Amino acid sequence: MTLPDHVGLSSDGTKVRILDQSLLPGREVYLELDQLDQLIEAIRSLRVRGAPAIGIFAGYALYVLARQLEKSAVQKELPRLGEALSNARPTAVNLSWAVRRMLQAAQGQEDPVAVLGRECRAIHEEDAAMCRAIAEHGLTLVKPGDGILTHCNAGQLATSQYGTALGPVLLGQERGIPFRVFADETRPLLQGARLTAWELQRAGVDVTLICDNMAGMVMKQGLVQACFVGCDRVAANGDAANKIGTSGVAVLAKHYGIPFYVLGPSSTIDLDCPTGADIPIEERPGEEIGSLWYREPMAPAGVKFYNPAFDVTEHDLITGIVTEKGVCNPPFSDALRRIKYGA
Amino acid sequence: MTLPDHVGLSSDGTKVRILDQSLLPGREVYLELDQLDQLIEAIRSLRVRGAPAIGIFAGYALYVLARQLEKSAVQKELPRLGEALSNARPTAVNLSWAVRRMLQAAQGQEDPVAVLGRECRAIHEEDAAMCRAIAEHGLTLVKPGDGILTHCNAGQLATSQYGTALGPVLLGQERGIPFRVFADETRPLLQGARLTAWELQRAGVDVTLICDNMAGMVMKQGLVQACFVGCDRVAANGDAANKIGTSGVAVLAKHYGIPFYVLGPSSTIDLDCPTGADIPIEERPGEEIGSLWYREPMAPAGVKFYNPAFDVTEHDLITGIVTEKGVCNPPFSDALRRIKYGA
Repeated sequence: MTLPDHVGLSSDGTKVRILDQSLLPGREVYLELDQLDQLIEAIRSLRVRGAPAIGIFAGYALYVLARQLEKSAVQKELPRLGEALSNARPTAVNLSWAVRRMLQAAQGQEDPVAVLGRECRAIHEEDAAMCRAIAEHGLTLVKPGDGILTHCNAGQLATSQYGTALGPVLLGQERGIPFRVFADETRPLLQGARLTAWELQRAGVDVTLICDNMAGMVMKQGLVQACFVGCDRVAANGDAANKIGTSGVAVLAKHYGIPFYVLGPSSTIDLDCPTGADIPIEERPGEEIGSLWYREPMAPAGVKFYNPAFDVTEHDLITGIVTEKGVCNPPFSDALRRIKYGA
Repeated sequence: MTLPDHVGLSSDGTKVRILDQSLLPGREVYLELDQLDQLIEAIRSLRVRGAPAIGIFAGYALYVLARQLEKSAVQKELPRLGEALSNARPTAVNLSWAVRRMLQAAQGQEDPVAVLGRECRAIHEEDAAMCRAIAEHGLTLVKPGDGILTHCNAGQLATSQYGTALGPVLLGQERGIPFRVFADETRPLLQGARLTAWELQRAGVDVTLICDNMAGMVMKQGLVQACFVGCDRVAANGDAANKIGTSGVAVLAKHYGIPFYVLGPSSTIDLDCPTGADIPIEERPGEEIGSLWYREPMAPAGVKFYNPAFDVTEHDLITGIVTEKGVCNPPFSDALRRIKYGA
């Protein structure tokens, strides 16, 4: 571990302790939260973000809230607390999944608080094990000293430990295997600049921050031996939805003959989704492009924006899909089905 | 003309009048300058920018300064004034070129101020005619209603009128030929967001601003029928240097089967430069990526940046090179030599 746990319990176990990601990279502030409204606000304001990290946070939150109740009230109050947390970000699948898992674990138990305490730690540990397995498999794809280009943030901050796309780099760093990482800043929300560059720098990794439009240049110069990106959803044919700009990186990688890998937990494989065309793409407000971070408006008033949050990388641009169960090679349809349903 | 002259003389002819581009798009301020130190500062602070526009500005500046001198002092003082202006941005080829041209025109003349007045207007008019010819040739490459993607700013603000890459769009707009333009914001200096989107919006063109990493998405969706970009230098084999990210757009265009055109005056063709590998690429300060426009630092302190200002688009990614003399098709080596030396 290169970064202290960014989501966990306070030392006395009575509060949820998180690194406030909304203040990075300018300020590094840890919060200790034990009130329902604080916990909801932390999710809504992206103080904790990244689907797996939100799930882990929700587990700890339910445990901390349950501790404060009369023992006799826990079973009655838990569903209401869980629903309130789930509604903080209704589209976050891991959030409602973690809440459901906590509730099911506690159901009918004589000492539900003790059960909840074990369950939230289990959620955290399982995520860490999943990330570690992805990292191990990813490490087999690169050599010491390789240049690795990544887009957006799929690191420790988005999960529990290691992350997905950054897992091989962070695990390699622990083992003394050096890589040179090129981090796309990832407009418009700058997750690459604010989060990826920050956590890799913190881990002692050799990281260079570039604008998204410089990815082709570093590839052409021979500085990149592999691209590692995360994924939000993988369709049955291997098409992968991820942060906007990912598919452009894949096209460049193909042009320059560089392998392009998608890394994520097997839970992101959605066999009910035949191809990437069936994945809905969220469109976000134009202000994110024209004014969000800026001192002054950087685009003319009233101009039209197009701001898709994600794009789909077609399976024929992907060299391999890495999950905790191993590396899938093309053709992906069969390989992904085996992963979900076993051989 | 869709925008009032952004560089020219004040109505009484005694001052240089410019639109202060450093304040766009937030504020639209015209300056009238007649002091040497003001004129130098305007170039240094990018109040006027774009190689052709700087050349035109320098012509007017020398005329305005010469008017203020005793008639007998003009021939003696002119070289000193010209050198001072040229040094304001030593790497701007058009600046020293325009200064030399003005000095040569005045040399030995009985009424040098009158000659300078004619010469500076001629520089301006020749640039406008060159842009108009590029625009006419470019217009033959697209159909009404086409979607055109552009990168950086190669429009009227960088030249006198119409611009180079934006010429076909602005000329088409005058003639009632509609296009839909997608403007890359062009990190890190945001010329696309601040200048291209502003001048196209001002001209009434249907323009949509996107982040650089969204170019592939609009191409994939069938919204783009051609890419038009400017150029800073074209090598003898057709390799073209332009704003960083241009070559990435070209790779995407090739992948999606979209023609990619480079537009610029024939003066940017450099036959002494065999290939793009011989074009030096300026690297600029990392703060442009991490903090220049931002309220707070958007990258961790001390992180490494890589910030090349330009890149080279290989000739085999270019569909055509458009100059005032017509459209060159591959193979470019012969076509470019004919343009420079005639048949």
